[in-house]
Amino acid sequence: MTEPRYDVIAIGNAIVDVMATCDDELIDELDLAKGGMQLVDADRARELYDAMGRATEVSGGSAANTLAGMAALGAQCAFVGQVADDQLGEIFSHDIRAVGIDFDTAPRDGDPPTARCLIFVTPDGERTMNTFLGASQFLPAAALDDELIASAGILYLEGYLWDPEEPRSAMRRAIEVARQNGRKVAFTASESFVIDRHGDDFRALIEEGQIDILFVNEHELASLTGLAAFEEGLASLAGRIPVLVATRSAKGAVGIAEGVRAEVPAEPVDQVVDTTGAGDLFAAGFLTGHARGEPLERCLRMGAICAAEIIGHIGARSQKDLKQLVAEKLG
Amino acid sequence: MTEPRYDVIAIGNAIVDVMATCDDELIDELDLAKGGMQLVDADRARELYDAMGRATEVSGGSAANTLAGMAALGAQCAFVGQVADDQLGEIFSHDIRAVGIDFDTAPRDGDPPTARCLIFVTPDGERTMNTFLGASQFLPAAALDDELIASAGILYLEGYLWDPEEPRSAMRRAIEVARQNGRKVAFTASESFVIDRHGDDFRALIEEGQIDILFVNEHELASLTGLAAFEEGLASLAGRIPVLVATRSAKGAVGIAEGVRAEVPAEPVDQVVDTTGAGDLFAAGFLTGHARGEPLERCLRMGAICAAEIIGHIGARSQKDLKQLVAEKLG
Repeated sequence: MTEPRYDVIAIGNAIVDVMATCDDELIDELDLAKGGMQLVDADRARELYDAMGRATEVSGGSAANTLAGMAALGAQCAFVGQVADDQLGEIFSHDIRAVGIDFDTAPRDGDPPTARCLIFVTPDGERTMNTFLGASQFLPAAALDDELIASAGILYLEGYLWDPEEPRSAMRRAIEVARQNGRKVAFTASESFVIDRHGDDFRALIEEGQIDILFVNEHELASLTGLAAFEEGLASLAGRIPVLVATRSAKGAVGIAEGVRAEVPAEPVDQVVDTTGAGDLFAAGFLTGHARGEPLERCLRMGAICAAEIIGHIGARSQKDLKQLVAEKLG
Repeated sequence: MTEPRYDVIAIGNAIVDVMATCDDELIDELDLAKGGMQLVDADRARELYDAMGRATEVSGGSAANTLAGMAALGAQCAFVGQVADDQLGEIFSHDIRAVGIDFDTAPRDGDPPTARCLIFVTPDGERTMNTFLGASQFLPAAALDDELIASAGILYLEGYLWDPEEPRSAMRRAIEVARQNGRKVAFTASESFVIDRHGDDFRALIEEGQIDILFVNEHELASLTGLAAFEEGLASLAGRIPVLVATRSAKGAVGIAEGVRAEVPAEPVDQVVDTTGAGDLFAAGFLTGHARGEPLERCLRMGAICAAEIIGHIGARSQKDLKQLVAEKLG
């Protein structure tokens, strides 16, 4: 097994976030499920955009946000995801390359356009996401080069992308290649609705021992295990996944690795401005620590520090120097 | 003279700002004139974008920023400006309409794309702007409806747009229509280089008594009058323009209206994050007060309060409730 060229390669949705603040009344009026993520078609996206206030565009996408955080922490990263050959695609491509991530998936010609996520941020800092997947769901298996997959220590997969058919096949193939090359496979469950639709797939992957590292939040853990009680859910998965990480928002996070358990509180935040990307950045901190062989508790702490940074401002890409932040807090 | 439907109609560049923080070394490396605004062609825009870090996209454009501020303060506004039929054009159009501004200029088909301004923000909060004018410079005279011009109490013109030929003719025509209908003409000099190129035009307009309200900063005042000393420059213009407003960054602002002079200090700012749009928002506060018939000093104070808000965050569109901010500070 050769030394990997990348710490991590991620396959995810290539999305530009369109973010606006709003009050709770608008969430009700538009009949949105506050705090969640919904897929929307072009018409609904248009309707929501028309109702949205003045917005800011920031590159997003769950796994891409995680990689951006990892790159900021000094990790070597590559990203695979599908944009269209349009202005939002250029924005996404620029922003991911600008933080030093290798991104070579060719843009897709013609319709649909690059994916966007219309994000309504309420005064409590909660984000309600509405994703028009556009080009993102047409990531072809051909975009995944076996050599590229084999060249990364960790293959990181985003549950959101399990939903559309083409990327799902591409990800299955990538898992095979990674395992054949002795690499680790990390997976983030992304959202309960993904588990509702594809839980059987995920449970099968876990049973087969295909997942080395799994990120879930409380809701996703419950959906995945069918067990409402957090500790029961944890217990039922812990033996089947080498590294299990469960995040609990303000209640912190728990990690169980090879039978050893660690728990960290949430990092204090001055003001919760926008929770978009909190889970993604937690994963960034954790995976960077893990890739470096740091102890479990330190990996969790790195996750908590990165998540806290992202919550303090609008947008899911870090604004402060994450490396310095972690050094200040953990030495 | 009928009661105007709008407080103000503005003609300006329709631009999306592409903003990123950077250090002073990059400004030097890229050979940029720190603090200024430069026009760039497509190749140079590409080169600068490639060198730029992860960015955020926010609608901009000098006069459009001013209108967005005025709308936030409760003024009735209409905007005329040219976008292309592309994603950045949609972003600009959405954002200006989302704050309640009427904007009906039809998007322009084909190349060039919607204008963008690549803005590098250094740690001192100074912004260095590089504008690719794209579709913006093709605003045709036909986009200006005489009735629309006549329906606004103030016609507000952006000096930046005096540079390209088509919009310049359109603006000349608009000035005529406004004056024939007994409306006021307000003008912002925008940038010294515009005055260097078109100073004779501007001086002629002033001599002919076509300008009722003029916004300049210290540099522009010097370029326009040929007098380096601030007070001498002021004195040479004061008698020729009914309302003259000169902004001086941290030194505050001076207004001279019908021979009466008022002066206000700059509003205190916790941290200068990004000065982009400070002049635009000063104009927003001032013009809103002026349209309401407020006394000169209060108009200047409103300008200073709005400028201070914009300096405290990235981007030239307000994030706080400007109306509430002015009410808190001025009652």
